[in-house]
Amino acid sequence: MTTIADLTNHQIRLAARPNGLPTREGWSFTSEPVNAPDDEGVLIKTLAISLDPAMRGWMNEGKSYIPPVGIGEVMRAGGIGEVIASKSPAFAVGDVVGCSPGTQEYCLVPGTDLKRAGVFKIDLRLGTQTQWLNVLGMPGMTGYFGLMDVGMPQAGETVVVSGAAGAVGQTVGQLAKIKGCRVVGIAGGPAKCEWVVKELGFDACIDYKAGDVKAGLKAHCPKGVDIYFDNVGGDILDAVLTRINRKARIIVCGAISQYNNTTPVKGPANYLSLLVNRARMEGIVVFDYADRYHLAVAEMAGYLKDGRMKSKEDVVTGLDTFPETLLKLFNGENFGKLVLQVASA
Amino acid sequence: MTTIADLTNHQIRLAARPNGLPTREGWSFTSEPVNAPDDEGVLIKTLAISLDPAMRGWMNEGKSYIPPVGIGEVMRAGGIGEVIASKSPAFAVGDVVGCSPGTQEYCLVPGTDLKRAGVFKIDLRLGTQTQWLNVLGMPGMTGYFGLMDVGMPQAGETVVVSGAAGAVGQTVGQLAKIKGCRVVGIAGGPAKCEWVVKELGFDACIDYKAGDVKAGLKAHCPKGVDIYFDNVGGDILDAVLTRINRKARIIVCGAISQYNNTTPVKGPANYLSLLVNRARMEGIVVFDYADRYHLAVAEMAGYLKDGRMKSKEDVVTGLDTFPETLLKLFNGENFGKLVLQVASA
Repeated sequence: MTTIADLTNHQIRLAARPNGLPTREGWSFTSEPVNAPDDEGVLIKTLAISLDPAMRGWMNEGKSYIPPVGIGEVMRAGGIGEVIASKSPAFAVGDVVGCSPGTQEYCLVPGTDLKRAGVFKIDLRLGTQTQWLNVLGMPGMTGYFGLMDVGMPQAGETVVVSGAAGAVGQTVGQLAKIKGCRVVGIAGGPAKCEWVVKELGFDACIDYKAGDVKAGLKAHCPKGVDIYFDNVGGDILDAVLTRINRKARIIVCGAISQYNNTTPVKGPANYLSLLVNRARMEGIVVFDYADRYHLAVAEMAGYLKDGRMKSKEDVVTGLDTFPETLLKLFNGENFGKLVLQVASA
Repeated sequence: MTTIADLTNHQIRLAARPNGLPTREGWSFTSEPVNAPDDEGVLIKTLAISLDPAMRGWMNEGKSYIPPVGIGEVMRAGGIGEVIASKSPAFAVGDVVGCSPGTQEYCLVPGTDLKRAGVFKIDLRLGTQTQWLNVLGMPGMTGYFGLMDVGMPQAGETVVVSGAAGAVGQTVGQLAKIKGCRVVGIAGGPAKCEWVVKELGFDACIDYKAGDVKAGLKAHCPKGVDIYFDNVGGDILDAVLTRINRKARIIVCGAISQYNNTTPVKGPANYLSLLVNRARMEGIVVFDYADRYHLAVAEMAGYLKDGRMKSKEDVVTGLDTFPETLLKLFNGENFGKLVLQVASA
């Protein structure tokens, strides 16, 4: 029988702050022995981690909504794991948990940290492991609260979402359809666009790689845009700004087109459309809604069950592939929520 | 006795759409006979017109919150006038009215147009003629509803306002003080900054011409910025974005730094601060609040009366000076609400 003392924890640490796209040279690969939990802590074996555009921001120095990952630290990453040793009355060996294991195979959480670290038991009756990293996880919660609390959709309104085939985008679009809106996605390439329309039921999807986003918006949003859920920033944000309606709401969720810039961020040159249209642009950070996650999860799990919400994950296996797999987010290669499978349960 | 038939109406018309700053060559100077009102109309003698940054936008082609002024048309301008002939039961000869006379000496309003044209009797007990173009007029209403309805100030919050010595800025800052906020202005030059602090009672004022606005914000907003009322856009907007607090509100009222650009508008490169801070940027157009003007006027007139609100106008005389007087807005020469006196009552 394998004991904790026999285990080795392979880790990926941030070695240098990237300038532009993060390369393999910017990471260091370490290994450490694994320790048993003391006090009321737990030892978690990482099953899968969530790769998200926001991770790029955490690699930068400077003030943000969360401190940057320090040089030499294991990279921050949300994920799911299996409890393999527990001194906590709240967790038993074999429990599958949501947690923030980082880019490593094992994660020791002291009892005093369990709450702060957000470790919680996952109910696999509500969704699969990877769905818990997608529609029922951070991206799903981001889409849910961004759309519902900031966007405040009304039936009949037109919702546009960029990164439509991504984790947040697929949630936003399907949820907006469920709420009775017309939904137009923006995604890269015909395969994603077709999937978004045929599988997810969006009303239309504009392929930004194929050309003119403005013309696409004009064609597919004949009544203008009431809500724009922005995951990408840059030229697409500027294009949508030319088509917004009075009292439109733009949810600023991300700006993946700008995250690896080596030049300054491109501000939206058409922002005065906010004035002309008495419209609003507002940021969302999902952590603010933590006390309502359970409500959103219950609602979304219902949609998964009755088939109104689909969930697509792009699963890549192997912790070692992390540096290259992460880049799929930034070159648009991932198709669905990007998940790095670290081990099987 | 002078009759209507003896009068000549001198007018200034838009001759060409400006590229950059509007020059005298872009205007044409015409004169026409004056006609008596028929039906239930009124003839108004223009006393003073309001010169506002928004006028620059009205000179551009393209969709906005109001149609552009057509080539060959009298330039649109709000103002006050005296009724010199009336067939309307609602107005008598001698009434001083708020109206939109445009850049001309006389303005004939048909009875069917009185309501749409927004002609209303002015109560000079509430404020002087020029105050009715300032704190009690469009700039005051813009400041009032922008601050109160979009900004939603809470006592103790920090409010920053650019164009602080201008018409909207002076209203916003004084009103925010009355509502219990810390108020920091941004204005050009020591005279304006000193006036804003000493006369209007702002807590501080940053002279953007003297140097580093970011450093000034850091020094004068030790608790960050909760509300930014933006009249200028450009680099100042970007500087403020670096200092906003969580849940900050940015009111997009104007962008005078960008109106005469011959290059594209500079979008706010730091707009992702909205995301980090879960903050909001929202446009205001004063006309949306027309049904509540009377309430705001009553409140503001009270502040004028009890001395908590001061009102400064920069009055230039002579319709002919219009092309050059307008430019004072864009080179920052005006000190207080810019008014063009066309005639005396």
